[in-house]
Amino acid sequence: MTTDTFSERGSAEDIEEGATLAPKFDADGLVTCVTTDAKSGDVLMVAHMNAEALARTIESGEAWYFSRSRRALWRKGESSGHVQRVTEMRIDCDQDAVLIKVEQAGPGACHTGRRSCFYRAVPLGKAPDKSLLLEFREAERAFDPAKVYGEKTD
Amino acid sequence: MTTDTFSERGSAEDIEEGATLAPKFDADGLVTCVTTDAKSGDVLMVAHMNAEALARTIESGEAWYFSRSRRALWRKGESSGHVQRVTEMRIDCDQDAVLIKVEQAGPGACHTGRRSCFYRAVPLGKAPDKSLLLEFREAERAFDPAKVYGEKTD
Repeated sequence: MTTDTFSERGSAEDIEEGATLAPKFDADGLVTCVTTDAKSGDVLMVAHMNAEALARTIESGEAWYFSRSRRALWRKGESSGHVQRVTEMRIDCDQDAVLIKVEQAGPGACHTGRRSCFYRAVPLGKAPDKSLLLEFREAERAFDPAKVYGEKTD
Repeated sequence: MTTDTFSERGSAEDIEEGATLAPKFDADGLVTCVTTDAKSGDVLMVAHMNAEALARTIESGEAWYFSRSRRALWRKGESSGHVQRVTEMRIDCDQDAVLIKVEQAGPGACHTGRRSCFYRAVPLGKAPDKSLLLEFREAERAFDPAKVYGEKTD
């Protein structure tokens, strides 16, 4: 499965108002994927999909991604068991970002052991400099990544 | 304001478990930003921030982005009036994605006139091909983009 699986990009009107799926893969062949918890609506993670990951996710109803650091197709949960069943997929206006709502198997989505990857807040209202300190929020570990992953992460 | 505004990237442990903000800007100098509605939690849009957009958002508490298509810094709402007041900013484990929760001024965030950019669903459960049809969901227009933007969009 390649980008040829999907339709070619048409006019802006076609892309934004049409019913044709014509994703805009970037120079690296990727679209951005935002993954939310189907029940709570919370954002669990942001990752990327190449054409094959997108096609496999659509076909299987389970989340597949493409790891930019490992340059590899990646079935979420393949090493941890923390698979994601997709209850709904949306695509945005210009079709370069995908939103999936998932039922997350296991205690968390983040390879650090948290439920969500977004466990630190950036304080607002002051020009940032190198003294800025992140604030941990909902950062308690839901699982021990060393036990779940060993050396491999997903 | 440049990437020098922020701390240098340390070890994986520093980046994931530390309180230092050290964003991972990509080859184009950007991080991904997911913007959700502070009240409903719904994902409104996905956009990008360069170092200056990120710094301005942190300092002002209003959303600034970097438009990849226009290659320009962009204050959300500068032409539409649909500014976004940021109630909380989070950063993810590897610090290449930001989540902002916003109070959206005006009827919607999407330049097509919708409340959210994610107004079309991708049907699941079948291998995608060029006959796949997107399904419009919550796609009613909240405002008329021609009236709000004229020629310029944000």
